Amino acid sequence: MSDLPFTFMLNMPGVIPSRIDNHIQRKLSALKGQFNDQQAFDKMLAEEDRLIYEVYEIKRPEVEGEMLMGVSIVHPGKVGREYFMTKGHFHSVLNTAEVYYCVRGEGYMVMETPDGETAVEALVAGKILYVPPCWAHRSVCTSRQDDLVTFFVYPANAGHDYGTIEQVGFRKMVLDSENGPEIVDNPRAK
Amino acid sequence: MSDLPFTFMLNMPGVIPSRIDNHIQRKLSALKGQFNDQQAFDKMLAEEDRLIYEVYEIKRPEVEGEMLMGVSIVHPGKVGREYFMTKGHFHSVLNTAEVYYCVRGEGYMVMETPDGETAVEALVAGKILYVPPCWAHRSVCTSRQDDLVTFFVYPANAGHDYGTIEQVGFRKMVLDSENGPEIVDNPRAK
Repeated sequence: MSDLPFTFMLNMPGVIPSRIDNHIQRKLSALKGQFNDQQAFDKMLAEEDRLIYEVYEIKRPEVEGEMLMGVSIVHPGKVGREYFMTKGHFHSVLNTAEVYYCVRGEGYMVMETPDGETAVEALVAGKILYVPPCWAHRSVCTSRQDDLVTFFVYPANAGHDYGTIEQVGFRKMVLDSENGPEIVDNPRAK
Repeated sequence: MSDLPFTFMLNMPGVIPSRIDNHIQRKLSALKGQFNDQQAFDKMLAEEDRLIYEVYEIKRPEVEGEMLMGVSIVHPGKVGREYFMTKGHFHSVLNTAEVYYCVRGEGYMVMETPDGETAVEALVAGKILYVPPCWAHRSVCTSRQDDLVTFFVYPANAGHDYGTIEQVGFRKMVLDSENGPEIVDNPRAK
């Protein structure tokens, strides 16, 4: 890993970075238990283990003072009425923030603290979101056709804690309704 | 200062953030001693103390785990043959990185380490630059008409050290030439 300054491009419309150190592809099966409509999940999985989201990571030493960056791409789609979304996570070093810059698409960031405080912020191209320390975060793509693409930056020593959220999911869910995306309580997360 | 997640927009073409906690305006007089052509500097200053660059900052607690963000706008122009540029700085906590996302314009980031290693990276819209820990950095606008606009993120405990660079300037300078921008050694920084 070079210690020289380096650059890379986010070329529109694909927005796949011109430099990639790691490419994560999360399929439906990896999100087992995360969507609320279990029947719809099982039916969809029986048909095809669809690609839900991808993350392109730029590697750096995972130490304080360095920062990790990458691009997250959530594809459009629904499981039942619930939009495709990322697994979502706390940082292992809980009191570390994250910055998201939405470069394409539309959706939401669903967030919560360990104390049960919740926040849901709409994302559109050109919007920047600050996720303060201690807030778990999950991105949700609500477009019918377009990917939700965000560029993210966070302290390199932060790490990921998926387990805490995986047990019951986030407290809020984003569902498709007649009037567009609707934010509702997750009945499993009380 | 709220501890809730928050968002703001970078609306084109102005790219001034929709949320601002602090607005820094650096005029020519604040860059005294930084440009190489002292005679051209004095002449320009006698005419008008021109606005060279602006920074819009979003405030957060300046502690580890938080991140500071903002937008830097370097206006087009030259002092003699040397393009308008920021003062440039090391971070006070030297081993902290910074991420720049160029959203508009064209220019360069001029960088160096305390050991005298140098790097100059071209910036264009859509390009992301990683400034590793320990690299001083200065942005330079090389367009004749357009601002160089970058969105930046860095660890909130980093701080700024302007003094080290102010004494002799950066080792590399960006000058206008017949063939466009030219990167040359700064004769004062040996």
